[in-house]
Amino acid sequence: MSRALVFDAYGTLFDVHSVRARCDALWPGKGAQLSQLWRTKQLEYTWQRSLMRRYEPFSKVTRDALEYCCAALGLALDAGKADTLMDEYLRLALYPDAKSALEKLRGAKLAILSNGSPDMLDPLVAHSGLRLDAVLSVHELRAYKPAPQVYQLAVDKLAVPKEQIEFVSSNCWDALGAKSFGFRVCWINRAGAPVDRLGFTPDRILEGLATL
Amino acid sequence: MSRALVFDAYGTLFDVHSVRARCDALWPGKGAQLSQLWRTKQLEYTWQRSLMRRYEPFSKVTRDALEYCCAALGLALDAGKADTLMDEYLRLALYPDAKSALEKLRGAKLAILSNGSPDMLDPLVAHSGLRLDAVLSVHELRAYKPAPQVYQLAVDKLAVPKEQIEFVSSNCWDALGAKSFGFRVCWINRAGAPVDRLGFTPDRILEGLATL
Repeated sequence: MSRALVFDAYGTLFDVHSVRARCDALWPGKGAQLSQLWRTKQLEYTWQRSLMRRYEPFSKVTRDALEYCCAALGLALDAGKADTLMDEYLRLALYPDAKSALEKLRGAKLAILSNGSPDMLDPLVAHSGLRLDAVLSVHELRAYKPAPQVYQLAVDKLAVPKEQIEFVSSNCWDALGAKSFGFRVCWINRAGAPVDRLGFTPDRILEGLATL
Repeated sequence: MSRALVFDAYGTLFDVHSVRARCDALWPGKGAQLSQLWRTKQLEYTWQRSLMRRYEPFSKVTRDALEYCCAALGLALDAGKADTLMDEYLRLALYPDAKSALEKLRGAKLAILSNGSPDMLDPLVAHSGLRLDAVLSVHELRAYKPAPQVYQLAVDKLAVPKEQIEFVSSNCWDALGAKSFGFRVCWINRAGAPVDRLGFTPDRILEGLATL
């Protein structure tokens, strides 16, 4: 058994598309499309800013992505609406299998390693009631996943060798970035998607957190 | 006037979606969807591999992305079909305004700066008949756009100071990466999209190459 289990947050423990209902309330019929595009742009901006060496915190990147997506979809966004939607990110729904899965695994060290900046991540975790040994943000490194130094942060902060860490993510590219770094990885493939072609394969592929 | 004009290739001078017809011939009715997803994944893989420090040439990344997309869309791909589609990338259509625009601008040095590896880029440019002073590939740097060292390559190879180079791209994130580096940039916004929120704005925005 691994001495530590390190979880991605957004998409893995927390459902980023739980913002859809609020999007739909603001712009009826547009929630699903906005939620999808928002997530896509949010990730693109993390990769592009990392490569440009123009890091900004995830809270800024997320708000910038929202602004872009509303402009692209022709949805009128004002500061009030943006605040409302950004607030949703502080109380995203846990996946139904997240809490019980973590309780069952308490024999190992349990941590989150996330792109989220502390201003987003800390309130989210507090609101969820999850019990964790560490909540780690890329923020202090000013670089986003899948840069290897991000995964190294978990080794350093947990003081566990990388061979004894299993990394769990529903974002395949994140799981493969962690694999490339040297973790044992589990890809949570809820949607039945193919494995990304990035030169690595996950050690395990599960349909959800329950069977971890 | 700028002493050098540096063009992005894929999407700017060459229409990456000219593969659509061939995709459609192989899988009737699926061409547009495959072509779109293929381009999206191709770019994601360039960003992710750059951050993972696992560079592979654009030809490999492009073929990997094709493989992923066919699996995701449930399209049966064999080596023959993959070869056929990869061959299309060697003779992508020029945008109708590309050749005349470049002819008009011959007072300046004209170059391409592309993610394309030489095995893809050189045959493509040769097939197009475009006359250029330099065709530069990121390949020797083993890093993809929008990393700043990519744009530096144009400065070094053209021996023109960056203040005297105008960079032209239809990929907004690429134009903004070049702006962040220090080029004057022109974004070719054929689709009327919003400007990406990456902390920079293009110096000029044009609807096509004709008015350059």
